[in-house]
Amino acid sequence: MSVAELIAGAQAGEQRDIARLISRIEDGSADAREAMQALAGFVGRAQVIGITGAPGVGKSTTTSALVSAFRARGNRVAVLAVDPSSPFSGGALLGDRIRMQQHATDEGVFIRSMASRGHLGGLAATTPQVIRVLDAAGFDAVLIETVGVGQSEVEVAATADTSVVLIAPGMGDSIQAAKAGILEIGDIFVVNKADREGAETTVRELLHMISLGQHEGWRPPVLKTVASLGDGIESLLAAIDEHRIWLVGSGQDRARKLRRIKDEICALVIGETKSRLSIRAAEIDSLSEAVLDGAMDAYAAAEQLN
Amino acid sequence: MSVAELIAGAQAGEQRDIARLISRIEDGSADAREAMQALAGFVGRAQVIGITGAPGVGKSTTTSALVSAFRARGNRVAVLAVDPSSPFSGGALLGDRIRMQQHATDEGVFIRSMASRGHLGGLAATTPQVIRVLDAAGFDAVLIETVGVGQSEVEVAATADTSVVLIAPGMGDSIQAAKAGILEIGDIFVVNKADREGAETTVRELLHMISLGQHEGWRPPVLKTVASLGDGIESLLAAIDEHRIWLVGSGQDRARKLRRIKDEICALVIGETKSRLSIRAAEIDSLSEAVLDGAMDAYAAAEQLN
Repeated sequence: MSVAELIAGAQAGEQRDIARLISRIEDGSADAREAMQALAGFVGRAQVIGITGAPGVGKSTTTSALVSAFRARGNRVAVLAVDPSSPFSGGALLGDRIRMQQHATDEGVFIRSMASRGHLGGLAATTPQVIRVLDAAGFDAVLIETVGVGQSEVEVAATADTSVVLIAPGMGDSIQAAKAGILEIGDIFVVNKADREGAETTVRELLHMISLGQHEGWRPPVLKTVASLGDGIESLLAAIDEHRIWLVGSGQDRARKLRRIKDEICALVIGETKSRLSIRAAEIDSLSEAVLDGAMDAYAAAEQLN
Repeated sequence: MSVAELIAGAQAGEQRDIARLISRIEDGSADAREAMQALAGFVGRAQVIGITGAPGVGKSTTTSALVSAFRARGNRVAVLAVDPSSPFSGGALLGDRIRMQQHATDEGVFIRSMASRGHLGGLAATTPQVIRVLDAAGFDAVLIETVGVGQSEVEVAATADTSVVLIAPGMGDSIQAAKAGILEIGDIFVVNKADREGAETTVRELLHMISLGQHEGWRPPVLKTVASLGDGIESLLAAIDEHRIWLVGSGQDRARKLRRIKDEICALVIGETKSRLSIRAAEIDSLSEAVLDGAMDAYAAAEQLN
């Protein structure tokens, strides 16, 4: 099928066409470029929500509960599960999709696992493009679930309109939480598994650390959920709505979308450099040998490749 | 002080000179380049060991115990604590350094916190350069502690000769562990806090998952430690030694060092692209506005910057 046909299908809500379009974007082929030209301007209707946290905090369960909540009020929802995946095999597990199975037959829900590597420009370039496709396909909300802490969280924070950071009780002390760099990222903090011991302590620690930070107009709330039982999900949805209202009212909405586009453009330029490097692999190998043997320094080697 | 003086001081084991040299490398200034030229060829004596795992598994405690073990047999040890740090504030907490305090007055131990951003080429470029300084300064072992899971782990795996992956009992089920992509990264797995409930289950799950993977010559062992009590640290050190012997015997030692250099060179080239982009920030802003308003697609914007 042509890109134009796929776009028409996606806009009609055809799940298969949306999936195919995303695959072509992930390929980074000429089709990706054509699709992006056709979809230029599709930025901004869908609410993009990042769901972030360390392994084991219950991100997939929370995402699934949020999907149900959005559906209950008639919204169409897309979920992008960004697995860091195996860096060496490139494989991505289907665990999240299994968790999401209850939504599998719902035409108003679109679920996609994305590998975090192998694309030109990486996730930083691909995610905004996939969001544009989902925007064009008329989804009201796009939930982006990322695993782990660190770089991938930064990318999500840059991508999402609203970043929800999940923490489980007893996942480590305050120093650990701050080390993970999640405090500046979160627009909303959720202590999930709040029926477990230590939940109140974790809430208190988070509130304290938030009180130490600087907040321009929006002070991140700290909520408690037991996502597996659906407890607290309505409050979470309300907080997400409230954050969106603040975003639009403060002009931060446009600022965040601009940042997303800026990151995308830069990621494409960097992707171009990476693609140039990948073509010169043999040359890099022999330059590396020269550096290892002390015949050259790394800067000199890099200059030969510029 | 001149770079040459700092290098001479570093080679004489002067901690302050080592620290200053690293700061100049992190600055990415002309001094960095000069230092790298002078240190070209210093690749390979120090044993580079990555210590990786999610927040709360006890990385700092394990690192500290390993430092003691290396010291007990007369080795000089350097520790690089790679904080993902706050992506927006650029700040790095001193938590690790506090944990390492018992080694603070030991002249045979060098400890350094590194922020994961702000360097030309990022950690991927800076870490090998810092390792080269520590190599030149005669350290026998360099421990690199990274927080979190995801991209930073991949970078460590690419940097270290031996990657130690820490897991705590009950940190999540197998699916979570595999999602974090740690299985292909680990040369040695450590179930820390092994006196806790669920330790045997975690060991069993890891052994099972390792049995499913492909291993060329080295099958990652799974050890149990209680780092806070020092339990199992001798066995961990023995496994690290064993892995080093395997690396050298199999030729993987040179292969890994080549990969480290290759990553460094590529990171410098990508850093050059990033630095080019940072100069054109205003232009990127107006291109982003054009994309947001639908007047242009992101690929076209990226092309104007190539």
